[in-house]
Amino acid sequence: MPVHSTVLRIESKPETDLIDITEQISGIVKKSGINSGIVTIFVKGSTASVSTIEYEPNLVADFKDAMERLIPSDIKYRHTETWGDDNGKSHIRATFMGPSLTVPFKDGQLLLGTWQQIVLCDFDVPARSRELVVQIIGE
Amino acid sequence: MPVHSTVLRIESKPETDLIDITEQISGIVKKSGINSGIVTIFVKGSTASVSTIEYEPNLVADFKDAMERLIPSDIKYRHTETWGDDNGKSHIRATFMGPSLTVPFKDGQLLLGTWQQIVLCDFDVPARSRELVVQIIGE
Amino acid sequence: MPVHSTVLRIESKPETDLIDITEQISGIVKKSGINSGIVTIFVKGSTASVSTIEYEPNLVADFKDAMERLIPSDIKYRHTETWGDDNGKSHIRATFMGPSLTVPFKDGQLLLGTWQQIVLCDFDVPARSRELVVQIIGE
Repeated sequence: MPVHSTVLRIESKPETDLIDITEQISGIVKKSGINSGIVTIFVKGSTASVSTIEYEPNLVADFKDAMERLIPSDIKYRHTETWGDDNGKSHIRATFMGPSLTVPFKDGQLLLGTWQQIVLCDFDVPARSRELVVQIIGE
Repeated sequence: MPVHSTVLRIESKPETDLIDITEQISGIVKKSGINSGIVTIFVKGSTASVSTIEYEPNLVADFKDAMERLIPSDIKYRHTETWGDDNGKSHIRATFMGPSLTVPFKDGQLLLGTWQQIVLCDFDVPARSRELVVQIIGE
Repeated sequence: MPVHSTVLRIESKPETDLIDITEQISGIVKKSGINSGIVTIFVKGSTASVSTIEYEPNLVADFKDAMERLIPSDIKYRHTETWGDDNGKSHIRATFMGPSLTVPFKDGQLLLGTWQQIVLCDFDVPARSRELVVQIIGE
Protein backbone atom coordinates (compact mmCIF):
# COMPACT_ATOMS: atom_id res chain seq x y z
CA MET A 1 0.00 0.00 0.00
CA PRO A 2 1.67 3.21 -1.18
CA VAL A 3 1.65 6.79 0.10
CA HIS A 4 1.08 9.50 -2.50
CA SER A 5 2.12 13.05 -1.52
CA THR A 6 1.33 16.21 -3.52
CA VAL A 7 1.56 19.92 -2.80
CA LEU A 8 -1.35 21.98 -4.12
CA ARG A 9 -0.81 25.73 -4.36
CA ILE A 10 -3.87 27.98 -3.98
CA GLU A 11 -4.00 31.78 -4.25
CA SER A 12 -6.51 33.37 -1.85
CA LYS A 13 -8.16 36.79 -1.71
CA PRO A 14 -7.87 39.06 1.37
CA GLU A 15 -10.13 38.48 4.42
CA THR A 16 -11.96 35.16 5.06
CA ASP A 17 -11.89 33.68 1.56
CA LEU A 18 -13.57 30.32 0.93
CA ILE A 19 -12.26 28.44 -2.10
CA ASP A 20 -13.84 25.28 -3.49
CA ILE A 21 -10.96 22.82 -4.04
CA THR A 22 -13.05 19.69 -4.66
CA GLU A 23 -12.07 19.35 -8.32
CA GLN A 24 -8.36 19.64 -7.57
CA ILE A 25 -8.48 17.06 -4.76
CA SER A 26 -10.59 14.70 -6.87
CA GLY A 27 -8.09 15.03 -9.74
CA ILE A 28 -5.10 14.32 -7.48
CA VAL A 29 -6.82 11.20 -6.09
CA LYS A 30 -7.59 9.91 -9.61
CA LYS A 31 -4.06 10.58 -10.86
CA SER A 32 -2.51 8.82 -7.82
CA GLY A 33 -3.62 5.45 -9.15
CA ILE A 34 -4.67 4.43 -5.63
CA ASN A 35 -8.09 2.80 -5.77
CA SER A 36 -9.40 2.96 -2.22
CA GLY A 37 -8.27 4.72 0.97
CA ILE A 38 -8.20 8.13 2.63
CA VAL A 39 -6.92 11.54 1.54
CA THR A 40 -5.73 14.04 4.16
CA ILE A 41 -5.75 17.70 3.05
CA PHE A 42 -3.53 19.77 5.36
CA VAL A 43 -2.96 23.52 4.97
CA LYS A 44 0.50 24.72 5.98
CA GLY A 45 0.25 27.90 8.05
CA SER A 46 -1.70 28.95 11.13
CA THR A 47 -4.38 31.25 9.63
CA ALA A 48 -6.35 28.85 7.41
CA SER A 49 -8.52 25.73 7.69
CA VAL A 50 -10.01 22.97 5.54
CA SER A 51 -13.62 21.76 5.89
CA THR A 52 -16.68 20.97 3.76
CA ILE A 53 -19.66 23.17 2.86
CA GLU A 54 -22.46 23.38 0.31
CA TYR A 55 -20.59 25.84 -1.84
CA GLU A 56 -23.21 28.40 -2.91
CA PRO A 57 -22.73 32.19 -2.59
CA ASN A 58 -25.45 32.88 -0.01
CA LEU A 59 -24.17 30.19 2.36
CA VAL A 60 -20.57 31.33 1.90
CA ALA A 61 -21.74 34.83 2.93
CA ASP A 62 -23.60 33.36 5.93
CA PHE A 63 -20.43 31.56 7.00
CA LYS A 64 -18.40 34.78 6.89
CA ASP A 65 -21.11 36.59 8.89
CA ALA A 66 -21.10 33.84 11.51
CA MET A 67 -17.29 33.96 11.82
CA GLU A 68 -17.47 37.73 12.22
CA ARG A 69 -20.02 37.37 15.04
CA LEU A 70 -18.10 34.59 16.80
CA ILE A 71 -14.51 35.82 16.46
CA PRO A 72 -14.87 39.50 15.48
CA SER A 73 -12.45 41.72 13.58
CA ASP A 74 -13.17 44.86 15.60
CA ILE A 75 -11.93 43.80 19.04
CA LYS A 76 -8.42 43.96 20.39
CA TYR A 77 -6.15 40.91 20.05
CA ARG A 78 -2.88 40.87 21.99
CA HIS A 79 -1.23 39.04 19.09
CA THR A 80 -1.07 42.42 17.29
CA GLU A 81 1.47 43.54 19.92
CA THR A 82 3.73 40.62 18.96
CA TRP A 83 4.06 41.17 15.23
CA GLY A 84 1.87 44.18 14.41
CA ASP A 85 0.19 42.26 11.59
CA ASP A 86 -3.32 42.59 13.03
CA ASN A 87 -4.50 39.07 12.19
CA GLY A 88 -5.23 37.71 15.67
CA LYS A 89 -8.79 36.87 14.62
CA SER A 90 -7.41 34.88 11.63
CA HIS A 91 -5.28 32.71 13.91
CA ILE A 92 -8.07 32.07 16.42
CA ARG A 93 -10.53 31.11 13.65
CA ALA A 94 -7.99 28.69 12.16
CA THR A 95 -7.15 27.04 15.50
CA PHE A 96 -10.87 26.56 16.25
CA MET A 97 -11.59 24.85 12.93
CA GLY A 98 -8.28 23.02 12.56
CA PRO A 99 -5.84 22.80 9.62
CA SER A 100 -6.82 19.45 8.13
CA LEU A 101 -9.60 17.29 6.74
CA THR A 102 -9.59 13.56 5.98
CA VAL A 103 -11.92 12.25 3.25
CA PRO A 104 -12.45 8.58 2.27
CA PHE A 105 -12.47 7.44 -1.36
CA LYS A 106 -13.34 4.21 -3.20
CA ASP A 107 -12.91 3.16 -6.84
CA GLY A 108 -10.98 6.41 -7.30
CA GLN A 109 -14.00 8.53 -6.26
CA LEU A 110 -14.22 10.84 -3.22
CA LEU A 111 -17.12 9.68 -1.01
CA LEU A 112 -18.69 13.12 -0.59
CA GLY A 113 -22.40 14.00 -0.39
CA THR A 114 -24.04 15.53 -3.46
CA TRP A 115 -24.06 19.07 -2.02
CA GLN A 116 -20.80 18.77 -0.10
CA GLN A 117 -17.69 20.51 -1.40
CA ILE A 118 -14.18 20.63 0.08
CA VAL A 119 -13.17 24.21 0.92
CA LEU A 120 -10.03 25.99 1.91
CA CYS A 121 -11.04 28.70 4.44
CA ASP A 122 -8.32 31.33 4.33
CA PHE A 123 -8.84 33.64 7.31
CA ASP A 124 -5.78 35.83 6.86
CA VAL A 125 -6.08 39.58 6.31
CA PRO A 126 -3.86 39.93 3.21
CA ALA A 127 -4.12 37.69 0.13
CA ARG A 128 -1.96 34.59 0.54
CA SER A 129 -0.31 31.97 -1.62
CA ARG A 130 -1.12 28.74 0.23
CA GLU A 131 0.52 25.35 0.23
CA LEU A 132 -1.82 22.44 0.88
CA VAL A 133 -0.33 19.00 1.43
CA VAL A 134 -2.54 16.31 -0.13
CA GLN A 135 -1.51 12.97 1.39
CA ILE A 136 -3.15 9.83 0.01
CA ILE A 137 -2.93 6.40 1.65
CA GLY A 138 -4.66 3.31 0.34
CA GLU A 139 -4.42 0.28 -1.87
CA MET B 1 -2.14 -3.56 4.72
CA PRO B 2 -5.74 -3.53 3.56
CA VAL B 3 -8.43 -0.83 3.37
CA HIS B 4 -11.84 -1.76 4.78
CA SER B 5 -14.78 0.41 3.67
CA THR B 6 -18.30 0.24 5.14
CA VAL B 7 -21.38 2.44 4.89
CA LEU B 8 -23.29 2.87 8.15
CA ARG B 9 -26.84 4.19 7.88
CA ILE B 10 -28.20 6.21 10.82
CA GLU B 11 -31.70 7.68 11.19
CA SER B 12 -31.72 11.05 13.01
CA LYS B 13 -34.47 13.05 14.70
CA PRO B 14 -35.30 16.66 13.70
CA GLU B 15 -33.13 19.57 14.98
CA THR B 16 -29.60 19.09 16.42
CA ASP B 17 -29.73 15.38 17.26
CA LEU B 18 -26.71 13.73 18.88
CA ILE B 19 -26.49 9.97 18.36
CA ASP B 20 -23.96 7.73 20.13
CA ILE B 21 -22.45 5.52 17.39
CA THR B 22 -19.56 4.08 19.44
CA GLU B 23 -20.92 0.52 19.49
CA GLN B 24 -21.48 0.45 15.73
CA ILE B 25 -17.98 1.79 14.96
CA SER B 26 -16.41 -0.60 17.45
CA GLY B 27 -18.28 -3.52 15.87
CA ILE B 28 -17.20 -2.55 12.33
CA VAL B 29 -13.55 -2.33 13.45
CA LYS B 30 -13.72 -5.77 15.10
CA LYS B 31 -15.41 -7.37 12.08
CA SER B 32 -12.83 -5.86 9.68
CA GLY B 33 -10.18 -8.26 10.97
CA ILE B 34 -7.64 -5.41 10.94
CA ASN B 35 -5.69 -5.46 14.18
CA SER B 36 -4.14 -1.99 14.47
CA GLY B 37 -4.61 1.28 12.58
CA ILE B 38 -7.00 4.20 12.20
CA VAL B 39 -10.70 4.47 11.44
CA THR B 40 -12.06 7.57 9.69
CA ILE B 41 -15.78 8.22 10.19
CA PHE B 42 -17.05 10.63 7.52
CA VAL B 43 -20.65 11.82 7.25
CA LYS B 44 -21.89 12.43 3.70
CA GLY B 45 -23.84 15.69 3.50
CA SER B 46 -23.21 19.25 4.60
CA THR B 47 -25.45 19.58 7.68
CA ALA B 48 -23.89 17.06 10.07
CA SER B 49 -20.62 16.42 11.94
CA VAL B 50 -18.80 13.68 13.83
CA SER B 51 -16.98 14.28 17.15
CA THR B 52 -16.66 12.78 20.62
CA ILE B 53 -18.52 13.66 23.84
CA GLU B 54 -19.28 12.19 27.24
CA TYR B 55 -22.69 10.96 26.17
CA GLU B 56 -24.98 11.77 29.10
CA PRO B 57 -28.34 13.61 28.73
CA ASN B 58 -27.45 16.79 30.64
CA LEU B 59 -24.26 17.36 28.64
CA VAL B 60 -26.07 16.63 25.37
CA ALA B 61 -28.59 19.34 26.36
CA ASP B 62 -25.72 21.72 27.25
CA PHE B 63 -24.20 21.12 23.82
CA LYS B 64 -27.46 21.98 22.07
CA ASP B 65 -27.82 25.15 24.18
CA ALA B 66 -24.26 26.20 23.33
CA MET B 67 -24.86 25.66 19.59
CA GLU B 68 -28.07 27.69 19.82
CA ARG B 69 -26.15 30.57 21.47
CA LEU B 70 -23.26 30.43 18.99
CA ILE B 71 -25.10 29.84 15.71
CA PRO B 72 -28.72 30.71 16.50
CA SER B 73 -31.91 29.49 14.82
CA ASP B 74 -33.78 32.79 15.09
CA ILE B 75 -31.59 35.02 12.90
CA LYS B 76 -31.77 35.45 9.15
CA TYR B 77 -29.54 33.29 6.93
CA ARG B 78 -29.23 34.20 3.25
CA HIS B 79 -29.05 30.50 2.40
CA THR B 80 -32.85 30.40 2.90
CA GLU B 81 -33.19 32.59 -0.21
CA THR B 82 -31.34 29.94 -2.25
CA TRP B 83 -33.43 26.87 -1.52
CA GLY B 84 -36.10 27.99 0.95
CA ASP B 85 -35.27 25.09 3.26
CA ASP B 86 -34.41 27.29 6.25
CA ASN B 87 -31.40 25.28 7.45
CA GLY B 88 -28.62 27.87 7.12
CA LYS B 89 -27.70 27.39 10.78
CA SER B 90 -27.39 23.62 10.20
CA HIS B 91 -24.85 24.15 7.42
CA ILE B 92 -22.78 26.69 9.39
CA ARG B 93 -22.66 24.43 12.47
CA ALA B 94 -21.53 21.49 10.33
CA THR B 95 -18.81 23.46 8.52
CA PHE B 96 -17.46 24.75 11.85
CA MET B 97 -17.17 21.29 13.38
CA GLY B 98 -16.23 19.41 10.22
CA PRO B 99 -17.64 16.19 8.69
CA SER B 100 -15.10 13.65 9.89
CA LEU B 101 -13.27 12.12 12.84
CA THR B 102 -10.25 9.81 12.88
CA VAL B 103 -9.82 7.40 15.81
CA PRO B 104 -6.85 5.07 16.40
CA PHE B 105 -7.31 1.41 17.37
CA LYS B 106 -5.04 -1.39 18.56
CA ASP B 107 -5.66 -5.12 19.11
CA GLY B 108 -9.09 -4.54 17.54
CA GLN B 109 -10.06 -2.01 20.26
CA LEU B 110 -10.85 1.70 19.74
CA LEU B 111 -8.42 3.78 21.85
CA LEU B 112 -11.08 6.02 23.42
CA GLY B 113 -11.19 7.43 26.94
CA THR B 114 -13.53 5.82 29.45
CA TRP B 115 -16.10 8.64 29.24
CA GLN B 116 -15.59 9.41 25.56
CA GLN B 117 -18.20 8.34 23.02
CA ILE B 118 -18.26 8.87 19.24
CA VAL B 119 -21.29 10.94 18.21
CA LEU B 120 -23.00 11.86 15.00
CA CYS B 121 -24.21 15.48 15.39
CA ASP B 122 -27.05 15.93 12.94
CA PHE B 123 -27.81 19.64 12.72
CA ASP B 124 -30.45 19.52 10.00
CA VAL B 125 -34.01 20.77 10.62
CA PRO B 126 -35.95 17.72 9.38
CA ALA B 127 -35.17 14.11 10.36
CA ARG B 128 -32.58 12.61 8.01
CA SER B 129 -31.39 9.21 6.93
CA ARG B 130 -27.58 9.58 7.05
CA GLU B 131 -24.83 7.70 5.32
CA LEU B 132 -21.56 7.51 7.24
CA VAL B 133 -18.49 6.14 5.51
CA VAL B 134 -16.37 4.11 7.94
CA GLN B 135 -12.92 3.73 6.35
CA ILE B 136 -10.41 1.53 8.18
CA ILE B 137 -6.69 1.38 7.33
CA GLY B 138 -4.18 -0.71 9.22
CA GLU B 139 -2.42 -4.00 9.47
CA MET C 1 3.39 -0.56 5.26
CA PRO C 2 3.45 -0.70 9.04
CA VAL C 3 1.40 0.95 11.80
CA HIS C 4 3.36 2.53 14.64
CA SER C 5 1.45 3.22 17.87
CA THR C 6 2.77 5.23 20.83
CA VAL C 7 1.19 6.69 23.96
CA LEU C 8 2.46 10.15 24.91
CA ARG C 9 1.74 11.32 28.45
CA ILE C 10 1.36 15.07 29.03
CA GLU C 11 0.78 16.84 32.35
CA SER C 12 -1.49 19.91 32.03
CA LYS C 13 -2.17 22.89 34.29
CA PRO C 14 -5.66 23.80 35.53
CA GLU C 15 -8.11 25.69 33.23
CA THR C 16 -7.63 25.90 29.41
CA ASP C 17 -3.96 25.04 29.14
CA LEU C 18 -2.30 25.03 25.70
CA ILE C 19 0.82 22.88 25.46
CA ASP C 20 3.15 22.83 22.45
CA ILE C 21 3.76 19.14 21.64
CA THR C 22 5.42 19.61 18.23
CA GLU C 23 8.85 18.41 19.37
CA GLN C 24 7.47 15.26 20.94
CA ILE C 25 5.37 14.36 17.88
CA SER C 26 8.27 15.11 15.55
CA GLY C 27 10.55 12.87 17.65
CA ILE C 28 8.07 9.99 17.65
CA VAL C 29 7.72 10.21 13.84
CA LYS C 30 11.51 10.17 13.37
CA LYS C 31 11.98 7.23 15.77
CA SER C 32 9.23 5.23 14.03
CA GLY C 33 11.46 4.68 11.01
CA ILE C 34 8.48 5.32 8.72
CA ASN C 35 9.55 7.68 5.94
CA SER C 36 6.31 9.09 4.55
CA GLY C 37 2.67 9.01 5.67
CA ILE C 38 0.27 10.49 8.20
CA VAL C 39 0.33 10.81 11.98
CA THR C 40 -2.94 10.97 13.93
CA ILE C 41 -2.72 12.55 17.38
CA PHE C 42 -5.76 11.58 19.46
CA VAL C 43 -6.36 12.70 23.05
CA LYS C 44 -8.15 10.17 25.25
CA GLY C 45 -10.84 11.89 27.31
CA SER C 46 -13.70 14.26 26.58
CA THR C 47 -12.37 17.60 27.88
CA ALA C 48 -9.37 18.21 25.61
CA SER C 49 -8.56 18.79 21.93
CA VAL C 50 -5.63 18.80 19.51
CA SER C 51 -5.09 21.52 16.88
CA THR C 52 -2.37 23.82 15.53
CA ILE C 53 -1.52 27.42 16.47
CA GLU C 54 1.34 29.89 16.18
CA TYR C 55 2.55 29.20 19.71
CA GLU C 56 3.39 32.62 21.15
CA PRO C 57 2.14 33.87 24.54
CA ASN C 58 -0.06 36.73 23.30
CA LEU C 59 -1.91 34.52 20.84
CA VAL C 60 -2.32 31.79 23.44
CA ALA C 61 -3.93 34.43 25.71
CA ASP C 62 -6.16 35.57 22.82
CA PHE C 63 -7.28 31.99 22.28
CA LYS C 64 -8.25 31.60 25.94
CA ASP C 65 -10.15 34.91 25.84
CA ALA C 66 -12.04 33.83 22.72
CA MET C 67 -12.97 30.48 24.32
CA GLU C 68 -14.21 32.31 27.40
CA ARG C 69 -16.41 34.57 25.25
CA LEU C 70 -17.78 31.70 23.14
CA ILE C 71 -18.31 29.01 25.79
CA PRO C 72 -18.17 30.91 29.10
CA SER C 73 -17.25 29.64 32.55
CA ASP C 74 -19.80 31.76 34.42
CA ILE C 75 -23.05 30.34 33.05
CA LYS C 76 -24.97 27.32 34.27
CA TYR C 77 -24.29 23.92 32.66
CA ARG C 78 -26.69 21.07 33.43
CA HIS C 79 -23.74 18.64 33.33
CA THR C 80 -22.83 19.91 36.82
CA GLU C 81 -26.02 18.25 38.11
CA THR C 82 -24.79 14.87 36.78
CA TRP C 83 -21.39 14.65 38.44
CA GLY C 84 -20.95 17.92 40.35
CA ASP C 85 -17.51 18.43 38.79
CA ASP C 86 -18.40 21.80 37.23
CA ASN C 87 -16.61 21.26 33.92
CA GLY C 88 -19.51 21.50 31.47
CA LYS C 89 -17.71 24.25 29.56
CA SER C 90 -14.62 22.01 29.25
CA HIS C 91 -16.66 19.25 27.60
CA ILE C 92 -18.46 21.59 25.20
CA ARG C 93 -15.19 23.23 24.12
CA ALA C 94 -13.62 19.83 23.48
CA THR C 95 -16.57 18.50 21.47
CA PHE C 96 -16.58 21.66 19.31
CA MET C 97 -12.90 21.39 18.45
CA GLY C 98 -12.65 17.60 18.33
CA PRO C 99 -10.18 15.19 19.95
CA SER C 100 -7.82 14.52 17.05
CA LEU C 101 -5.53 15.99 14.42
CA THR C 102 -3.95 14.30 11.40
CA VAL C 103 -0.64 15.69 10.08
CA PRO C 104 1.21 14.52 6.93
CA PHE C 105 4.97 13.84 6.94
CA LYS C 106 7.60 13.12 4.29
CA ASP C 107 11.26 12.11 4.55
CA GLY C 108 10.67 11.78 8.30
CA GLN C 109 9.65 15.48 8.60
CA LEU C 110 6.25 16.83 9.69
CA LEU C 111 4.86 19.02 6.87
CA LEU C 112 3.94 21.98 9.09
CA GLY C 113 4.15 25.68 8.27
CA THR C 114 7.02 27.70 9.78
CA TRP C 115 4.82 29.33 12.43
CA GLN C 116 2.53 26.36 12.98
CA GLN C 117 2.86 24.29 16.14
CA ILE C 118 0.84 21.26 17.28
CA VAL C 119 -0.96 21.96 20.57
CA LEU C 120 -2.82 19.98 23.14
CA CYS C 121 -5.71 22.19 24.36
CA ASP C 122 -6.64 20.92 27.79
CA PHE C 123 -9.95 22.54 28.76
CA ASP C 124 -10.53 20.74 32.04
CA VAL C 125 -10.82 22.63 35.34
CA PRO C 126 -8.27 20.67 37.41
CA ALA C 127 -4.76 19.76 36.21
CA ARG C 128 -4.79 16.47 34.30
CA SER C 129 -2.39 13.74 33.28
CA ARG C 130 -3.30 13.15 29.64
CA GLU C 131 -2.79 10.18 27.39
CA LEU C 132 -2.35 11.02 23.72
CA VAL C 133 -2.33 8.19 21.20
CA VAL C 134 0.14 8.91 18.39
CA GLN C 135 -0.74 6.58 15.49
CA ILE C 136 1.58 6.61 12.47
CA ILE C 137 0.75 4.97 9.14
CA GLY C 138 3.00 5.11 6.09
CA GLU C 139 5.78 3.46 4.19
